[in-house]
Amino acid sequence: MIRIRAQQIARGLSQIIGREFLKENIKTSIKQPTQSQSPQHPWSSVSSVRTIAMLPWPFSQSRDFSLPNSSWGSDMRRLYEHYNSQCEVETEEGGKKWGAWRRLPSYNRSIKFATGGVYLSKIIQSKARLFTRSVKEPGAAFEYVMFVNKEEEKCVCVFQAGHLLEGPPGHVHGGAIATMIDSVTGTHATYLSGPVMTANLNINYRSPIPLGSTVLLTCSLDKKEGRKTFVSCQVTNTDGSKLHTEATGLFVSITMGNLLGG
Amino acid sequence: MIRIRAQQIARGLSQIIGREFLKENIKTSIKQPTQSQSPQHPWSSVSSVRTIAMLPWPFSQSRDFSLPNSSWGSDMRRLYEHYNSQCEVETEEGGKKWGAWRRLPSYNRSIKFATGGVYLSKIIQSKARLFTRSVKEPGAAFEYVMFVNKEEEKCVCVFQAGHLLEGPPGHVHGGAIATMIDSVTGTHATYLSGPVMTANLNINYRSPIPLGSTVLLTCSLDKKEGRKTFVSCQVTNTDGSKLHTEATGLFVSITMGNLLGG
Repeated sequence: MIRIRAQQIARGLSQIIGREFLKENIKTSIKQPTQSQSPQHPWSSVSSVRTIAMLPWPFSQSRDFSLPNSSWGSDMRRLYEHYNSQCEVETEEGGKKWGAWRRLPSYNRSIKFATGGVYLSKIIQSKARLFTRSVKEPGAAFEYVMFVNKEEEKCVCVFQAGHLLEGPPGHVHGGAIATMIDSVTGTHATYLSGPVMTANLNINYRSPIPLGSTVLLTCSLDKKEGRKTFVSCQVTNTDGSKLHTEATGLFVSITMGNLLGG
Repeated sequence: MIRIRAQQIARGLSQIIGREFLKENIKTSIKQPTQSQSPQHPWSSVSSVRTIAMLPWPFSQSRDFSLPNSSWGSDMRRLYEHYNSQCEVETEEGGKKWGAWRRLPSYNRSIKFATGGVYLSKIIQSKARLFTRSVKEPGAAFEYVMFVNKEEEKCVCVFQAGHLLEGPPGHVHGGAIATMIDSVTGTHATYLSGPVMTANLNINYRSPIPLGSTVLLTCSLDKKEGRKTFVSCQVTNTDGSKLHTEATGLFVSITMGNLLGG
């Protein structure tokens, strides 16, 4: 029971911080779907293992914010299709299998029993929403979708910056850019190393991002040293010809106890 | 006319990026109020100079978000009173004069003719709001007020983190913390050096901040080198006994042309 609950908490935590655990050591007893139902994930060597990114529960009632909506512009849709089409590919026999990339679902709230900080009131807890998904109006704030590529140890994020993210007139706030960098590098570090917390972000702003435009965040692993995972990230325009921002992130592996204040 | 418009733009720009220009070289023809109406500001050696932080226009219709509202908790109110009471002090003659600290007003939108980026549509432009003031519900996101102290070259920000800023369960998102650091260090750099853009932020996260709690951001000038202004910032609990985050910011002076894309 304790173990199951720990797994539930782990799943919830990963979702609320926008970092999907794909570690193979988080196992469930839910059977892997057969190949005819859903493609077999090549990254897992154990067929009975399902990662939490594949599990709808406890978010079956929640909207997956990583799916297209009517606010997405042409750049956002085109890049989404570019990566999404590489998530599932056809086999020679006409079947389907997992491709090189994988879309990460995204939700806006935690599970109820992830109680959080000591000062957190029950009212705040029930109303708490993930910062990057807390504005209800589609397109108004952060519209984004992340894809990971295990083979290349890369993670990309297509990000459309809405009108509520303004900093300098007509441009995206430096803090909103930092927020997306933290989210994407953190997701990538979690994907590579399991649960982590951000220890350092070092961000160089090269060129301001026009409000309403779509940019691409590309993350790669620099190195892993013990509990530390070093990730770098570049923010460019959609064809990669203009560098807007570049950053490095240092993430430290934590236990469930760290996250729950235990 | 051009000069007046440039001044108007300068004021608007400073507000939208949350960085009040207090540079004495931004002059207006509006007369300084007499001492009986309002205390004389000791920082200005020219009595006819009014800084834009003192001018209501073009924001006379706008709400000043730096004033207390019903969502503020006891810590937020107490720290507000602590600094606000030092903004105006009594003279020996029973009059009033400016104190060591000064509250900076805060608005949520730019002026209409600050058109911004080349890709900015008119719809987005009209709906654009400052990222840190874009959520209407009081207390839900960023509640903060900044005070500057010219003598000590310091800037403080009292920040209450609302339930929509969640990152790790029950704690504030690293991006929301980065956003406040960018805002406060940027405001301080603008206060010290005039219009600036963020060039670098280097943030060390030491201890997570519980959602709903109030923290204090304290900024000081490290050095100025030509167009560069280096500011450091510490985020602590309200009595300063616990360090949550520390950061440095590098800001580069820009001209109005840089900001307007000219």
